[in-house]
Amino acid sequence: MISRNLHARVLGTSRKFSRTASRCEILDAESLPGRIIPRYLESKTSDLLSLKWPSPPRNILLMKKNRAPNVTESLIEYAKHIHSNYDNVSLIFEPKVASQMHKRFSFPVYTSSTSEELSSKVDMTTTLGGDGTILHASSLFSTTPDVPPILSFSMGTLGFLGEWKFAEFKRAFREVYMSGAEAGSPLYQDQKHPHVQANPYESGDVVTGWSSVRGKSMGPTRSSKVLLRSRLKVGVYDGNGQRISGDNSTEGADSDVHALNEVIIHRGKEAHLAVVEVFVGGRFLTEAVADGMIISTPTGSTAYSLSSGGSIIHPLVSSLLMTPICPRSLSFRPLVLPANTPITLRLSEKNRGRELEVSIDGKRRSIGVGVGMEVRVNGEHISKGQQWIGGVPCVMRGTTTGVEEDDGWVGGLNGLLKFNYPFGES
Amino acid sequence: MISRNLHARVLGTSRKFSRTASRCEILDAESLPGRIIPRYLESKTSDLLSLKWPSPPRNILLMKKNRAPNVTESLIEYAKHIHSNYDNVSLIFEPKVASQMHKRFSFPVYTSSTSEELSSKVDMTTTLGGDGTILHASSLFSTTPDVPPILSFSMGTLGFLGEWKFAEFKRAFREVYMSGAEAGSPLYQDQKHPHVQANPYESGDVVTGWSSVRGKSMGPTRSSKVLLRSRLKVGVYDGNGQRISGDNSTEGADSDVHALNEVIIHRGKEAHLAVVEVFVGGRFLTEAVADGMIISTPTGSTAYSLSSGGSIIHPLVSSLLMTPICPRSLSFRPLVLPANTPITLRLSEKNRGRELEVSIDGKRRSIGVGVGMEVRVNGEHISKGQQWIGGVPCVMRGTTTGVEEDDGWVGGLNGLLKFNYPFGES
Amino acid sequence: MISRNLHARVLGTSRKFSRTASRCEILDAESLPGRIIPRYLESKTSDLLSLKWPSPPRNILLMKKNRAPNVTESLIEYAKHIHSNYDNVSLIFEPKVASQMHKRFSFPVYTSSTSEELSSKVDMTTTLGGDGTILHASSLFSTTPDVPPILSFSMGTLGFLGEWKFAEFKRAFREVYMSGAEAGSPLYQDQKHPHVQANPYESGDVVTGWSSVRGKSMGPTRSSKVLLRSRLKVGVYDGNGQRISGDNSTEGADSDVHALNEVIIHRGKEAHLAVVEVFVGGRFLTEAVADGMIISTPTGSTAYSLSSGGSIIHPLVSSLLMTPICPRSLSFRPLVLPANTPITLRLSEKNRGRELEVSIDGKRRSIGVGVGMEVRVNGEHISKGQQWIGGVPCVMRGTTTGVEEDDGWVGGLNGLLKFNYPFGES
Amino acid sequence: MISRNLHARVLGTSRKFSRTASRCEILDAESLPGRIIPRYLESKTSDLLSLKWPSPPRNILLMKKNRAPNVTESLIEYAKHIHSNYDNVSLIFEPKVASQMHKRFSFPVYTSSTSEELSSKVDMTTTLGGDGTILHASSLFSTTPDVPPILSFSMGTLGFLGEWKFAEFKRAFREVYMSGAEAGSPLYQDQKHPHVQANPYESGDVVTGWSSVRGKSMGPTRSSKVLLRSRLKVGVYDGNGQRISGDNSTEGADSDVHALNEVIIHRGKEAHLAVVEVFVGGRFLTEAVADGMIISTPTGSTAYSLSSGGSIIHPLVSSLLMTPICPRSLSFRPLVLPANTPITLRLSEKNRGRELEVSIDGKRRSIGVGVGMEVRVNGEHISKGQQWIGGVPCVMRGTTTGVEEDDGWVGGLNGLLKFNYPFGES
Ligand SMILES: NC(=O)C1=CN([C@@H]2O[C@H](COP(=O)(O)OP(=O)(O)OC[C@H]3O[C@@H](n4cnc5c(N)ncnc54)[C@H](O)[C@@H]3O)[C@@H](O)[C@H]2O)C=CC1
Ligand SMILES: NC(=O)C1=CN([C@@H]2O[C@H](COP(=O)(O)OP(=O)(O)OC[C@H]3O[C@@H](n4cnc5c(N)ncnc54)[C@H](O)[C@@H]3O)[C@@H](O)[C@H]2O)C=CC1
Ligand SMILES: NC(=O)C1=CN([C@@H]2O[C@H](COP(=O)(O)OP(=O)(O)OC[C@H]3O[C@@H](n4cnc5c(N)ncnc54)[C@H](O)[C@@H]3O)[C@@H](O)[C@H]2O)C=CC1
Ligand SMILES: NC(=O)C1=CN([C@@H]2O[C@H](COP(=O)(O)OP(=O)(O)OC[C@H]3O[C@@H](n4cnc5c(N)ncnc54)[C@H](O)[C@@H]3O)[C@@H](O)[C@H]2O)C=CC1
Repeated sequence: MISRNLHARVLGTSRKFSRTASRCEILDAESLPGRIIPRYLESKTSDLLSLKWPSPPRNILLMKKNRAPNVTESLIEYAKHIHSNYDNVSLIFEPKVASQMHKRFSFPVYTSSTSEELSSKVDMTTTLGGDGTILHASSLFSTTPDVPPILSFSMGTLGFLGEWKFAEFKRAFREVYMSGAEAGSPLYQDQKHPHVQANPYESGDVVTGWSSVRGKSMGPTRSSKVLLRSRLKVGVYDGNGQRISGDNSTEGADSDVHALNEVIIHRGKEAHLAVVEVFVGGRFLTEAVADGMIISTPTGSTAYSLSSGGSIIHPLVSSLLMTPICPRSLSFRPLVLPANTPITLRLSEKNRGRELEVSIDGKRRSIGVGVGMEVRVNGEHISKGQQWIGGVPCVMRGTTTGVEEDDGWVGGLNGLLKFNYPFGES
Repeated sequence: MISRNLHARVLGTSRKFSRTASRCEILDAESLPGRIIPRYLESKTSDLLSLKWPSPPRNILLMKKNRAPNVTESLIEYAKHIHSNYDNVSLIFEPKVASQMHKRFSFPVYTSSTSEELSSKVDMTTTLGGDGTILHASSLFSTTPDVPPILSFSMGTLGFLGEWKFAEFKRAFREVYMSGAEAGSPLYQDQKHPHVQANPYESGDVVTGWSSVRGKSMGPTRSSKVLLRSRLKVGVYDGNGQRISGDNSTEGADSDVHALNEVIIHRGKEAHLAVVEVFVGGRFLTEAVADGMIISTPTGSTAYSLSSGGSIIHPLVSSLLMTPICPRSLSFRPLVLPANTPITLRLSEKNRGRELEVSIDGKRRSIGVGVGMEVRVNGEHISKGQQWIGGVPCVMRGTTTGVEEDDGWVGGLNGLLKFNYPFGES
Repeated sequence: MISRNLHARVLGTSRKFSRTASRCEILDAESLPGRIIPRYLESKTSDLLSLKWPSPPRNILLMKKNRAPNVTESLIEYAKHIHSNYDNVSLIFEPKVASQMHKRFSFPVYTSSTSEELSSKVDMTTTLGGDGTILHASSLFSTTPDVPPILSFSMGTLGFLGEWKFAEFKRAFREVYMSGAEAGSPLYQDQKHPHVQANPYESGDVVTGWSSVRGKSMGPTRSSKVLLRSRLKVGVYDGNGQRISGDNSTEGADSDVHALNEVIIHRGKEAHLAVVEVFVGGRFLTEAVADGMIISTPTGSTAYSLSSGGSIIHPLVSSLLMTPICPRSLSFRPLVLPANTPITLRLSEKNRGRELEVSIDGKRRSIGVGVGMEVRVNGEHISKGQQWIGGVPCVMRGTTTGVEEDDGWVGGLNGLLKFNYPFGES
Repeated sequence: MISRNLHARVLGTSRKFSRTASRCEILDAESLPGRIIPRYLESKTSDLLSLKWPSPPRNILLMKKNRAPNVTESLIEYAKHIHSNYDNVSLIFEPKVASQMHKRFSFPVYTSSTSEELSSKVDMTTTLGGDGTILHASSLFSTTPDVPPILSFSMGTLGFLGEWKFAEFKRAFREVYMSGAEAGSPLYQDQKHPHVQANPYESGDVVTGWSSVRGKSMGPTRSSKVLLRSRLKVGVYDGNGQRISGDNSTEGADSDVHALNEVIIHRGKEAHLAVVEVFVGGRFLTEAVADGMIISTPTGSTAYSLSSGGSIIHPLVSSLLMTPICPRSLSFRPLVLPANTPITLRLSEKNRGRELEVSIDGKRRSIGVGVGMEVRVNGEHISKGQQWIGGVPCVMRGTTTGVEEDDGWVGGLNGLLKFNYPFGES
């Protein structure tokens, strides 16, 4: 565990110590400068958005797959690379990871145990692992509309959400870091004020501009392409319409939790049918008698919903999927609804007192759902007024080549999901 | 705007003849005044749009189910009712129907054999039949972005597209006719209009305002609710990229044809597999080895695509469905793509010279598709600048009650499709 | 009419007490005479077998649905009817039911808590409830190849396994009781030896023949039609190939347990994929990555397997079904294998230490299955040498009318499962 | 075409001519000795049967894929090999193939244009092509209960029915030819056989029985393993119950036609629903509103039925599959019925006069089916009295290795059908 006392002490003073002195330290992310929020620009050649930092990102959250010791070394290599090449960048780790690894670094690392703090500090998240790690990263921002962009690397087998191979980490990180720094912009050409300049977006702070890495620029700067993956908002309510909070931070005290893949309600371990009343847009739609129900995002359409017979939905189709799990009916076909349709799953009295399990993105809620309780779901509204708001901004791969100006979705279907895989001897 | 003079003049000629003489006449729709295009207003209480006529509709296209003699009498009753109560309204029939029925009327009817003319004249279409009749009505406007609103009545069993029961025809027609006529508007209270107060049942007079039917107003006017069903644009091209036109008007000479349900490509009558190369957004997606392929609208998701295993998509989800028909693969799951995704189906050389059949909304193209030929599909862009443009405006039922401020879709799933129909003795 | 005295004498000790004293008694089934095993004859007009008792059944196991208080009164009515009209019949109840109800009877009832004893005493089982009650009844004989025939009544909604309506209980019971008593047979016409005769199958015992109920014969005796439903044999083994027994009687100490519907292996309550290696006929078939796997009988094809996408298999097709539950694959189609195919489900090491749940006919095994453990499944061999052996003999309905010489399966598909239920307004 | 006159002339006299003279000739199969019917023995180590010839096969039907010129050379190589090494063997070709190829041979070949003749002459069929060629071979015996064994080689991609690779043809043919020739049997050491003659191509051995190839024996003779694939019997009847014959020999004049895969009834080229009344075991089951209906064998379960959503059935499960093609219903799940269930598909009057197409094993019947007409289907009865009778005996691969004592089905699922093909980068 992390010593809070140490943290507290160190926090106010860390900058006073020499670099050598501070090695091995775990500092509280509270002391970090506030978050830099990027903009997302539309382009004509792609349905993806272009990432544009107002100034270079400084606070990077580094995450790794659980229970995968072999990923640890890669994470260390990655962290050291960032620290050595991007000197104004601070690295944040989850508490467990921080305490496990900080001794390996010659520089202090940061940590935070609350989602709120992370949401106010993290400029960008980068994950080493599979889809599960991305889901976990997303869950740290599950109560925030404004999720920092995620740059994800697959370790071992490629996942469907994570686009980059770890071998590409140097190029990938640089590309994201530089994204939006225009050749002619003051920021980009900031040669006279190396490493320091005023942040035009956050007054008072002193930040390093991209000039520090200009020498390593990859020519005319290409911007990273971002897919804004829309989420679900999920709330659990009791029979009286009172919101029930889960028992930990990510289960959403008094606000909705966002899901990147799906929320499911499931019979759990007993092999007996669950009975769930389904309301759509306030109207009773049907009584589901089944193993369970999935309400999924288009992103989640290739996850559990797919296994349950759902269609594959492109992530840019603004919609919600309702897919039953093993329904006791011959005629319960999956539905695709407009993203703004409110959906309610209410536990029927026919469950004879049994509780059902609720899971979000594969994480089971510690508190089940009993008779009369409701899971209320809504698609997250992704909108663009002044700024794009909502969704999980995922940095897509392969944009520097200029070849693939697409979202990589077709490639994923064929390469990973073995979509329409041909018959015959291979 | 519309040339009233011309209208009056043209109409006058026919009126020179004696009543007896004119009664069985079939006139050319060319002589009718130009089309009145309604506006569609968004509302806060509903995802449906409100129909608003700038002035009352005058040219009504009446259609009926094919090969269904029992519908003929209903059509006559309906036509007579309109003629008697809405004296400025002219009735247009398809040529075959016109010649079959005009003797039954004491007033002249209109006809037209070109889609172009219909598109420039018809203010509103109303159908008596099933979904097939609506599809046929829609096909008459298959090259027009600006389809007149369709008011459809089911005869016999209710269809999924047609919302009204024939027994409701008087109320339904009045509601649509009056839609958007505000109580205080000049049009509505058009008492100074010179043509007003003609014999409401039989009159050679020309009226334009709603005042003529004001006495029968249903109180504060409710506007009809309209669902804009988006379509597909379909073009057929030869191996050199030249557009191939079909052999009749609705098969699209030099422009895309619009489909309301779907376009399919199919092996036809020989029980051998078809091989089709599928491109999505310009990229090769997959080679389909199957009975055929369906590219469907959300509206069509409850038609052929459903039978082929597709999910049910709400008509307001802006998307295209790609559903294979009996694919020779265990892993060809249906896909849902953004509506603006260009899709190409190209006939593979592996078809060993055989032609495939192309059908749009159940109507087979007279010319098949051979090796190298392509079917190119795109979702119709429904947009709202000054005006909503695109889609087939379908008048939805049940809006006058004020009870169901929804699109009737949930009701259709349960009532018609027997969605998730429960097990057990009924 | 009924000889209470004889009855009393025969039973032995319990009859020492006065009638009043004995009325609320619960006796041990051990004291009952041994089981009478019926024969099953093939017929030309039906695929079903004809039930033929060598002498009338005496020991009837009466079962009722759990947690359904309303069924209790029906059970009492039924029990009283049997007691009053079939004087040599003893009624056996499950311990809990016996203690709950025996005060309601003026005659002693029997009970037993071991499957072994039930298997050696029960001539016939009759259930009041739904499919779940039949499954439970079947589970009491889950280690026996020679299951007594089951006569089942549905309470409330009809089930798929239970054929009779409770309102028919008098006729139904009589029909089964009399089944196979030929008009000309000594047993049937046993008028000179009222109520007593030698049992040709079990020497020494004194039994009542059918003559006692002859007066109420339904004319030329029809025999009950029986569907022999084949089962699965299931064993659980550890990594060293040692059989692991469950923790209670029906979980099979040192022998296979029989399943009437299916055995499943499932991820349980955590929303994470299970990984199971599947072997068929000793060969590795595939690695299932899924919620779980179902190995089902044809009878079970309309149960869980159906919900998971399996085909419907007629109970007389000698086969096993392998149906994955939510497989993480686009190409894991359900399989139907010959009934004698040995199937092994082995827990992969990829489950990262997690246990999976094993359930038989909806009853979860108290002990989960961990890495390396195996569930071995085999179809029960139903064979006919001298006698039919194997399977659960289910008494089918509607045979007395002579109209339906079928197995009721088609009716069940249409009436209960709403198979191919037509679209359209009902 | 083949000149019958030539044939007739040649037939009586061919033996008179010298060998040189007879080259290039096409003789009528009529002149060949009668068929030798093998026996099929059950074994304990395998579910497959062992092929046992009473004496060596003499009349071999060689077939090749249509429209595949590259297969022709292989066929010639194969034919020459057989002729050179098995000198008592006569080769039969289909008329078209015979006339196309006979010039390439220095020996006469045989042909026949009637199924009857083929059935009475052919000892064994061997095919070069894919599944389609095997289906075609099977169709030549579609009115015979007693189909000669089929040895099939895949050319190009492996098929699901054809087990052998062409590269194995020498070993494969020898194995089948020798199958059942016991080392000590008179047949095997048949040196006194009267038909002795010199083999002009190989050493001066004198042979007619198996002795001629004894020197090349593969040690203790292994017998070929045979899978008896059961078929469907199909008859077409008019509204009065009169059998309607097709217009050519294989369409079954006055007897049922056998299908190896399936019979389908289909809407054909017009994109409108077909309506078919389905009777099972004489009872009305359902009204199918669909593209069509498939009644399939277990063998056909991996063909069209699979594409239509049917389960995969092992060929040894005695059953029939009923799989709808694109049914207009959410609840028309595929059914698996006992093989002896009579099934009738009757054309409903609701087809509004349209005809439907009937196809057997991919071959469309030249005469469609109209209102009131019926397709009656029954599973072929495969039985073993003295002899196994019924089914298509297919020689399975890989038996000489001794390794795979199975039916190759699991391998086919994985290797060819990509059953449960795993996700992830390959
Ligand atoms: N998602 C699903 O479909 C699930 C199904 N089950 C099934 O429930 C069975 C246990 O039954 P209960 O204890 O009553 O549990 P339950 O209360 O979960 O009800 C199971 C339902 O399945 C029906 N059923 C059972 N056997 C059937 C059969 N052979 N054919 C058609 N319908 C059948 C019952 O009538 C009841 O409606 C298990 O053997 C399993 O097959 C169990 C869990 C989930
Ligand atoms: N949509 C579909 O899946 C369709 C399938 N077919 C099937 O094609 C068969 C006729 O074959 P062809 O003349 O070669 O026509 P074809 O050229 O249409 O090819 C049919 C394909 O099915 C495969 N096939 C045939 N029988 C099979 C079996 N029992 N198991 C696994 N694969 C099998 C063949 O290898 C070939 O790839 C029909 O009996 C029917 O089963 C026919 C039409 C459509
Ligand atoms: N039967 C099934 O298919 C089940 C699926 N899941 C899925 O697993 C997710 C949780 O993931 P983990 O924690 O890694 O659990 P996990 O260890 O059970 O693995 C889930 C698998 O799903 C893949 N996956 C996750 N999200 C995906 C997406 N959006 N598109 C395509 N593939 C995706 C992962 O790569 C991994 O292979 C849940 O959100 C749920 O969607 C969970 C339970 C059962
Ligand atoms: N196997 C199948 O399911 C087939 C379906 N069709 C569908 O039929 C349509 C043509 O209709 P008809 O000329 O009446 O042919 P039809 O006489 O073959 O009837 C088609 C049926 O589909 C229903 N339908 C049509 N559009 C629908 C929609 N959007 N949602 C729900 N149900 C719908 C109609 O009410 C009718 O019951 C095609 O656009 C195609 O979608 C056509 C051929 C086969």
